[in-house]
Amino acid sequence: MATNSLPVLAILGGTGDLGTGLARRWAQAGYEVIIGSRNQEKADTAVADLREVMAERGVTELSVRSAENLAAAQAADIVTLTVPFSHQSSTLELVQAALQGKILIDVTVPLVPPKVARVQLPEGGSAGQIAQALLGDDVSVVSAFQNVAAAHLQEGSGLNCDVLVSGNKKDAREAVITLVEAAGMRGFHAGMINNAAAAEALTSVLITINKRYGCHAGIKITGIED
Amino acid sequence: MATNSLPVLAILGGTGDLGTGLARRWAQAGYEVIIGSRNQEKADTAVADLREVMAERGVTELSVRSAENLAAAQAADIVTLTVPFSHQSSTLELVQAALQGKILIDVTVPLVPPKVARVQLPEGGSAGQIAQALLGDDVSVVSAFQNVAAAHLQEGSGLNCDVLVSGNKKDAREAVITLVEAAGMRGFHAGMINNAAAAEALTSVLITINKRYGCHAGIKITGIED
Repeated sequence: MATNSLPVLAILGGTGDLGTGLARRWAQAGYEVIIGSRNQEKADTAVADLREVMAERGVTELSVRSAENLAAAQAADIVTLTVPFSHQSSTLELVQAALQGKILIDVTVPLVPPKVARVQLPEGGSAGQIAQALLGDDVSVVSAFQNVAAAHLQEGSGLNCDVLVSGNKKDAREAVITLVEAAGMRGFHAGMINNAAAAEALTSVLITINKRYGCHAGIKITGIED
Repeated sequence: MATNSLPVLAILGGTGDLGTGLARRWAQAGYEVIIGSRNQEKADTAVADLREVMAERGVTELSVRSAENLAAAQAADIVTLTVPFSHQSSTLELVQAALQGKILIDVTVPLVPPKVARVQLPEGGSAGQIAQALLGDDVSVVSAFQNVAAAHLQEGSGLNCDVLVSGNKKDAREAVITLVEAAGMRGFHAGMINNAAAAEALTSVLITINKRYGCHAGIKITGIED
């Protein structure tokens, strides 16, 4: 159960492996989580599936519910976006008013199918910059989680993978690093929102490595004294 | 001493910490290395300094010599470029004819001072793509080593840092991965030359992390079974 001191979290487009993986980890850490979708039934199914998986593991007390994307954004304090790049702008336009004064965690990777293993950054520099420009300065866009393999998020164990956290406001980055840690990973201040380009580009490199080496690769930052 | 089977290596603009760090490691692995500079005297000094440092460690048999950049490129089989972004194109234009049929290892990071901690990728997408476009298809441009801290290269010990290796030709990437391993690191096939953008952008993120956490950060790829 979420305590009063924890922010309510929404995950828009949260019915995929990445969204439900984050939902599971945050709910297990005690957060109230809303899985959002364009389609209420899809969101209902994702929540039911998540409850079933967790019940098999003996976890029955999870504060997870479903909603359409707009209602999810309205009800949450911090909103995470996990939709394909082609749906990023339309989803943000839908929820723009509901995001004012809040943090948006943008997980969008600007992949251009079919060549998803090739870096093809957008004209705006990165999906993170596109989101910040679209939403305006009263929304704190923080880019994160692009380099986390959904397959590993879905596992119950620890994650051997770090998260680069970019955004123009330090307080917002701090809040997201707290959520990264709640999900079982280390998060690093990675600079202004322009620097989202690094993690977004790296995703295509990791896809290349996954194909070649048959794995679900991630990255760790080295050279820092623990 | 280099054996006949090893390629001769040139490092253009090789008098800095990164260039001399690579020179030291490759020479110790038995390669013949030419440190190139715009200025013969600067190259002479770099080689003399390198010999002195290595002699202090008891290493006197090193096949390292100095040359101006053009002569270095002409004499080498594989050429590495370690100049600031602002000198990349002029240096490549100088040696273009000498590079035909060879591999160019591009280490250029498109930093735009004074905001070097901010990702500011060039219009061509990446420095790697700029090099490949400038040199033409008879030169195999391979992007590598952007994320290696020169401070760590200068140390004698092992390096806790991986190298992303991008380029359009697999054989050329393989040859560079051999050189990455000779320098004491793991190298990964990271895709076509477009994917140089990832390592180049990541450098500004690592600069951000170095400033904030007081370190010389690098990256490791995780999730691959050894």
